[in-house]
Amino acid sequence: MRKLFCVFISFLIISCENKDVETNFIVIFVDDMGYGDLGSYGHPTIQTPNLDKMANEGQKWTQFYSASSVCTPSRAALLTGRLPIRNGLIGKEDNSSRVLFPDSEYGIPSSEITIAEKLKDNGYKTAIVGKWHLGHKIEYLPLQHGFEYYYGIPYSNDMDKVNGSIPYKRFMKNPNWVADTKEYNVPLIENNEIIERPVDQTTITKRYSEKAVEFIKKNKKNKFFLYLAHSLPHIPLFASKDFLGTSKAGLYGDVIEEIDHGVGMIINELKKNNIDKNTIIVFTSDNGPWLPFKNHGGSAGLLREGKGTTWEGGQRVPGIFWGGDIKPGIVNGLGSTMDILPTFLEISNSSPIDDRILDGLSLKNTLFSLEESKREKVFFYREREIFALRFREFKAHFIIKGAYNYPEKTEKIILKNPLLYNLNLDPSEKFDIAEKNPKIIEEIKDLINFHKKDLILKDDLLQYRIKNQN
Amino acid sequence: MRKLFCVFISFLIISCENKDVETNFIVIFVDDMGYGDLGSYGHPTIQTPNLDKMANEGQKWTQFYSASSVCTPSRAALLTGRLPIRNGLIGKEDNSSRVLFPDSEYGIPSSEITIAEKLKDNGYKTAIVGKWHLGHKIEYLPLQHGFEYYYGIPYSNDMDKVNGSIPYKRFMKNPNWVADTKEYNVPLIENNEIIERPVDQTTITKRYSEKAVEFIKKNKKNKFFLYLAHSLPHIPLFASKDFLGTSKAGLYGDVIEEIDHGVGMIINELKKNNIDKNTIIVFTSDNGPWLPFKNHGGSAGLLREGKGTTWEGGQRVPGIFWGGDIKPGIVNGLGSTMDILPTFLEISNSSPIDDRILDGLSLKNTLFSLEESKREKVFFYREREIFALRFREFKAHFIIKGAYNYPEKTEKIILKNPLLYNLNLDPSEKFDIAEKNPKIIEEIKDLINFHKKDLILKDDLLQYRIKNQN
Repeated sequence: MRKLFCVFISFLIISCENKDVETNFIVIFVDDMGYGDLGSYGHPTIQTPNLDKMANEGQKWTQFYSASSVCTPSRAALLTGRLPIRNGLIGKEDNSSRVLFPDSEYGIPSSEITIAEKLKDNGYKTAIVGKWHLGHKIEYLPLQHGFEYYYGIPYSNDMDKVNGSIPYKRFMKNPNWVADTKEYNVPLIENNEIIERPVDQTTITKRYSEKAVEFIKKNKKNKFFLYLAHSLPHIPLFASKDFLGTSKAGLYGDVIEEIDHGVGMIINELKKNNIDKNTIIVFTSDNGPWLPFKNHGGSAGLLREGKGTTWEGGQRVPGIFWGGDIKPGIVNGLGSTMDILPTFLEISNSSPIDDRILDGLSLKNTLFSLEESKREKVFFYREREIFALRFREFKAHFIIKGAYNYPEKTEKIILKNPLLYNLNLDPSEKFDIAEKNPKIIEEIKDLINFHKKDLILKDDLLQYRIKNQN
Repeated sequence: MRKLFCVFISFLIISCENKDVETNFIVIFVDDMGYGDLGSYGHPTIQTPNLDKMANEGQKWTQFYSASSVCTPSRAALLTGRLPIRNGLIGKEDNSSRVLFPDSEYGIPSSEITIAEKLKDNGYKTAIVGKWHLGHKIEYLPLQHGFEYYYGIPYSNDMDKVNGSIPYKRFMKNPNWVADTKEYNVPLIENNEIIERPVDQTTITKRYSEKAVEFIKKNKKNKFFLYLAHSLPHIPLFASKDFLGTSKAGLYGDVIEEIDHGVGMIINELKKNNIDKNTIIVFTSDNGPWLPFKNHGGSAGLLREGKGTTWEGGQRVPGIFWGGDIKPGIVNGLGSTMDILPTFLEISNSSPIDDRILDGLSLKNTLFSLEESKREKVFFYREREIFALRFREFKAHFIIKGAYNYPEKTEKIILKNPLLYNLNLDPSEKFDIAEKNPKIIEEIKDLINFHKKDLILKDDLLQYRIKNQN
């Protein structure tokens, strides 16, 4: 009898493990969407019923961060669970660029391990639909980094300008002004081949959503990892004819509403195939809104500043987790896009990455049991320098600088007296409390020093990478 | 057979009417809470699960306005469905005060008709629990204006200062600093009698919620109208010992979370008595957050400025409608606290008010069928002057002025060139579009001129009231 009971228990354990093993993962990553751009995060006129429903049925994280305030480093960090400084994807040594451009020669090092590589090793079908921005030379493209399928634009949709000029002023004139898609000679790549150039950007969001649905349909009987990285709402904004001019919030609203519609298509497909209960979707953004583009940029809600800066608006983004065994709730502990890798590895019973430092922490216990998040620190880097560090509720700024290039270049200011904010009380970073809390500032300085030693001592590839990728 | 059918139909119609007749109404009105202070309106660390649930099960209005950016006029407008300028509750003629103070001699005129008076005439049991602020002389107290029961503080909880000084600087020092409740000699009134002075403010939110529940319990077999007007989060902030120090967002968060808890108590009581399906709750705020009080004031979220000003943060407030036949959804049409009176009168089949101008419009068709709201205009008055007018998506500012008194008095600026914003595109009032839209400004000016004539010609009591109430 006892034997039989043990067999039964073993069976239960195996069942549980099997259930974990079979969780599918979808990351929906949007470009330059701000903290305040969804209904559930407080936007008054952009309508996002599908994302709001996800936030309501799943977990809405209110203190969730991307790892950088610009594109390339943010994406490198998400896919590797490591700070950009460790990947070397931090712009040129003279700080003349922050992200990859069409003339960049480098990309994500082959020594880096992506979520896709780990999950593929564990039997997952993997695909990326959308923006890559981790190198467009053949060796850097997604198929060489763990993805079995790629469909998308390799870098930002405003690159490869045909006439070479930056049409910044044109965006200022009319919130509904639509660029000519042919002004940007941006390629669309499938696997390792360019299949369309210039890509017709007016239908790009629609096509990405359709490709995502197609991948789900094709793999409904496999376990899969889908990384859907929308090229929009990065400027220039485009919407397909079903959405153009339909939102109350102008062209920017049209774009977000088309993305939201695509999210609804994905959820429908999961439900139709009865795999919604074992598929986890994470929805988030690569950085804050590009504010100098006014109505063509989004809103950081109550947060200060936006994209490019180390104020909260630059890196705090919506973070919605839905599906699987996720316990519904609002989570106001700290989270980071770098936590996605270890979380997925743990949930899928994949082997951990233990030959290098990871900056991500598994969120599994928060997702499944609403336990307090283990994350205590958020680094705010610009290129190679730490401008600010959040530790628990406190954030100290040591260097500040405005958003770059638009309308003009800004200078960095090394603060003699660091600024300190309590973000739980003062999310808008309005009330400096440094003077009365010198000990907290010292504690944060110690954490930074510790982190710097850790970088140099333990990650011997770092100097090599930085040197060779510029 | 045909006769029988007609009898059946008549029966159905009577049933429907009866159902309407029996709808109960609860207005929960909080003091100085900002647009951004609830989870469902985007606050990251204040936890409001009961209000979020109401917003999700009912309607969350994202462009809902109080009728004034300060207390007394806002309350007069809510209860009468009329602009404060018509009630005369607009401060002293020399603009030396905007609201009633303990030494004020006047209050709401007996000629004004309140929601309570109308519903009482229709057989409703009526009560107010909380802040009145429409006159504390006997003839102005709630029992003389349609309410059958009163329990609350007659004016703001920071009035009747014992030592006469304004402790503004003390609020700046510590976000968790709690005043001594005895520093304010504020009375607690039951019906027409003072029952406690100074009132113990530490338990005031808790006691208000309990009194509200008691009223519901007592009237579960009647139809009823309950006006629960919390004294907080107006400064000085207090929380009972179960909430003090418990929120992540400091004392301000404690206060909001205690109010939210009280909302949960009310909903539980309705459910327990099986009257949740025929009770409509409206939750809103009298004006925006009192920003100069820093962490003791709230947040207007993505909106500009706060209490006392005619920027959006001064008058746009959360507006949640829950219960009864309300069709769930997010509503981004315009609404006003002045619309509550005609809405309740229509739903309860009470006779309309037709002997005077109402500024409120019934929202019934939006509430029950999600039809587009009929409201097209929102006036932004300061005392006797129109500073701004919203017309559809556009808002024109003709006069601007900062919040008053703290940290110092501000001067009004009559704009040579009015400012114009498209609030659907630009809710934060950042991008002036006046230059390119002179016709819209002219149209808005015409609407203001029409409104001014309307005031003088049709409301012959107005001049008398303004003269005699100061």
